[in-house]
Amino acid sequence: MLNVTVWNENRHEQKSQVVRNIYPEGIHGAIASFLKEEHEVKTATLDEESYGLTDNVLYETDVLIWWGHLAHHEVDDVIVEKVKQRVLDGMGLIVLHSGHFSKIFKTLMGTTCDLKWREADEKERLWVVDPSHPIAEDIGEYIELEKEEMYGEHFDIPAPEQLIFMSWFEGGEVFRSGCTYQRGKGKIFYFRPGHETYPTYYHKDVQKVIKNAVLWAKPTKLPKPIYGNAKPLEEIKPKKE
Amino acid sequence: MLNVTVWNENRHEQKSQVVRNIYPEGIHGAIASFLKEEHEVKTATLDEESYGLTDNVLYETDVLIWWGHLAHHEVDDVIVEKVKQRVLDGMGLIVLHSGHFSKIFKTLMGTTCDLKWREADEKERLWVVDPSHPIAEDIGEYIELEKEEMYGEHFDIPAPEQLIFMSWFEGGEVFRSGCTYQRGKGKIFYFRPGHETYPTYYHKDVQKVIKNAVLWAKPTKLPKPIYGNAKPLEEIKPKKE
Amino acid sequence: MLNVTVWNENRHEQKSQVVRNIYPEGIHGAIASFLKEEHEVKTATLDEESYGLTDNVLYETDVLIWWGHLAHHEVDDVIVEKVKQRVLDGMGLIVLHSGHFSKIFKTLMGTTCDLKWREADEKERLWVVDPSHPIAEDIGEYIELEKEEMYGEHFDIPAPEQLIFMSWFEGGEVFRSGCTYQRGKGKIFYFRPGHETYPTYYHKDVQKVIKNAVLWAKPTKLPKPIYGNAKPLEEIKPKKE
Amino acid sequence: MLNVTVWNENRHEQKSQVVRNIYPEGIHGAIASFLKEEHEVKTATLDEESYGLTDNVLYETDVLIWWGHLAHHEVDDVIVEKVKQRVLDGMGLIVLHSGHFSKIFKTLMGTTCDLKWREADEKERLWVVDPSHPIAEDIGEYIELEKEEMYGEHFDIPAPEQLIFMSWFEGGEVFRSGCTYQRGKGKIFYFRPGHETYPTYYHKDVQKVIKNAVLWAKPTKLPKPIYGNAKPLEEIKPKKE
Repeated sequence: MLNVTVWNENRHEQKSQVVRNIYPEGIHGAIASFLKEEHEVKTATLDEESYGLTDNVLYETDVLIWWGHLAHHEVDDVIVEKVKQRVLDGMGLIVLHSGHFSKIFKTLMGTTCDLKWREADEKERLWVVDPSHPIAEDIGEYIELEKEEMYGEHFDIPAPEQLIFMSWFEGGEVFRSGCTYQRGKGKIFYFRPGHETYPTYYHKDVQKVIKNAVLWAKPTKLPKPIYGNAKPLEEIKPKKE
Repeated sequence: MLNVTVWNENRHEQKSQVVRNIYPEGIHGAIASFLKEEHEVKTATLDEESYGLTDNVLYETDVLIWWGHLAHHEVDDVIVEKVKQRVLDGMGLIVLHSGHFSKIFKTLMGTTCDLKWREADEKERLWVVDPSHPIAEDIGEYIELEKEEMYGEHFDIPAPEQLIFMSWFEGGEVFRSGCTYQRGKGKIFYFRPGHETYPTYYHKDVQKVIKNAVLWAKPTKLPKPIYGNAKPLEEIKPKKE
Repeated sequence: MLNVTVWNENRHEQKSQVVRNIYPEGIHGAIASFLKEEHEVKTATLDEESYGLTDNVLYETDVLIWWGHLAHHEVDDVIVEKVKQRVLDGMGLIVLHSGHFSKIFKTLMGTTCDLKWREADEKERLWVVDPSHPIAEDIGEYIELEKEEMYGEHFDIPAPEQLIFMSWFEGGEVFRSGCTYQRGKGKIFYFRPGHETYPTYYHKDVQKVIKNAVLWAKPTKLPKPIYGNAKPLEEIKPKKE
Repeated sequence: MLNVTVWNENRHEQKSQVVRNIYPEGIHGAIASFLKEEHEVKTATLDEESYGLTDNVLYETDVLIWWGHLAHHEVDDVIVEKVKQRVLDGMGLIVLHSGHFSKIFKTLMGTTCDLKWREADEKERLWVVDPSHPIAEDIGEYIELEKEEMYGEHFDIPAPEQLIFMSWFEGGEVFRSGCTYQRGKGKIFYFRPGHETYPTYYHKDVQKVIKNAVLWAKPTKLPKPIYGNAKPLEEIKPKKE
């Protein structure tokens, strides 16, 4: 059992009746709901104090899930830096869908994280390209989503360390949809689907991938590496001038 | 709890009193002994019928550990092919030390797996270079082995997908000592230490790495991908001549 | 200017008038033709003595291009082993289309190299996913092929070291279409398109990718690493018993 | 022939007679000197206007080399952002030694880039671990430096996409000394050696590695990917409600 915090911007839910109808408890509520069976789950949203991410919450979080879209710029750089430090110290991070443009994802990637997009009720099929990976557990050959927003290449990210899913879109594009990264002691998983106007987070396979990713991203317990000036472990011989 | 099979050539143990004194139950016995607390463990050796690797044993094995040295050539190609199929079907494989030259490792790597070596009672220090990896759990900054055989670069392997340990040797060499690979549905971990004339497999950190690797290498449960001729999932439009 | 050898099975060309009409000089002839402007190009085919791959030809080849399909099993293991040794010694290897099932590719990959396929005159679009890679030089966002055979995931290969192209197929599949690997001193590029019944190798972008790949795959000049028993470079201190 | 700009902080040279004696033309001068035979080379330093990196200079630079140490914080964030954009747009970047802590390297990596260090006149031996890589061209099995500063693991960087050199240090540490990365359209190479109080940049092999890296890092010419809202390339069928 892990301590999971589901962070959601929670603005579409306030602005749009369509989104509210799909996610009456918010996207964070929907995600928390299927993770609660296995984990200790908290939610946190942009309009809470400290965005719901107090030092204490961050310190106790094993895996943080991040959904944002409209208001990436409203997340203060100070909190972004704190989240980054926690990732480098071992906290797992799962970035969903439009979170590709969040400050936390961009600063950890070092690139623009830009991409192509289109909202056209189109079909997406996420193919498993690494069937050895625990994040693909219990998934068939592909996940099919009847209607989703399109994200297309080029996706401006560093080459994923492990590429697990690749998406096919009806309109002619492809996308690297399930990507893992390592940063410091932390593990990061980017997972593409989840546009706010579709019931994607109720899809059983999408839920399973997120559950798998939480387990995969859990912190590795080992002492923080020691940096800075270091005494030699072996004798260094004097050299001639 | 996983089904782990520890395979050992078990020839040094028969030929050398020095080795027998260190490993009275054989290297396989020593490794099985610390894995038994957590897993269902079998051992298998070269001189058993089918090398102890009957179809049934292979079929039921979640993770196979492999130690060999003198008699790689005595392992029949037929059994090597069976083990390879099981790895591609999801069985984890942990290759130890001189197993780098085993038929099974070479055929899965596609290279010679050659390296430099020296037996000179020298110090090895394995540094953790990926502190996010579960195989490094509970390990400090490095593992120090007072006396080991040296393995030096160039190690003729494909670039590891994840490099977890790098060794420093007293005599001036370095080595990629903890390497992961994915092949089909299976996960592979190569771990360098374990020369037969040293009590390396009694070292607590070495044992912990192998324990971690067993958990990491466990099969991912998902249907085998379907290969061959495939019907289209979407309509294909007739093209003009 | 490099020494390039284009190897082709050259059987479809003998059996089928359709293929002969498209490639009157054979697939090897078509590929050699656009490489000749820049390189010293030889061709070699299955029905020549030693398959056209004498020791001398292999020794002098900087980059070998491989197209095969019907008769992979007719290529003798001895010649496969020789080609493999040359790759490990630095010769570049470019494997095209149905060459995925060639003995040389499978032995270098360590996997089955199996995949889904379909011949249905369908559209393929190869998206550039690594625009930093020299193999993508002068290519736009994608290469579009009006009619091609479909190859679909799961493609049973080791995770590519660099993934340059990803294909979208009209019938609903995706594929890792441009993959690089390193084996020993050699560089390998797999490139998907090129079914024998389509004029794919006359497509300017396909030609450009192959030209780029030849330059990328050229041998790196450095001494072959020394393997085996090695004297210490530094003093090793006697240890206490 | 490429346009190469060698950027150097050039502060040690002003403060220390020892450094001035070794590098009378500055570290930038020494590096420019051996690159001039093959390329159009400019130098730029911290105390020049715009740090010598005007928009024009950046725009015309194919490959930028970066050496800094004492004054990373004096490089304005605005110029760092411009350099980053140029890298993402295709400019090659070679980061040397203490440049690991430069703002430009840290922002492209997404990590702290921290490490262990020690100044103790100790021996470094950089082993080639990827003999297929063009950056290793003409290098033997290793490069030996009689006296260098030690940098030790854990080096807090993302796992290198290609690891070319691994260092052995006399005092007992190892280090990933030659690392490549891809970011956007740009290629990045980190190369460890080059402490200011040693004549490292006069070492023939060190010079050769930097020369090789310049050629490897040259921009790939292809149109910048198009990001943002995208029209479908294929018809999207209306879905049922």
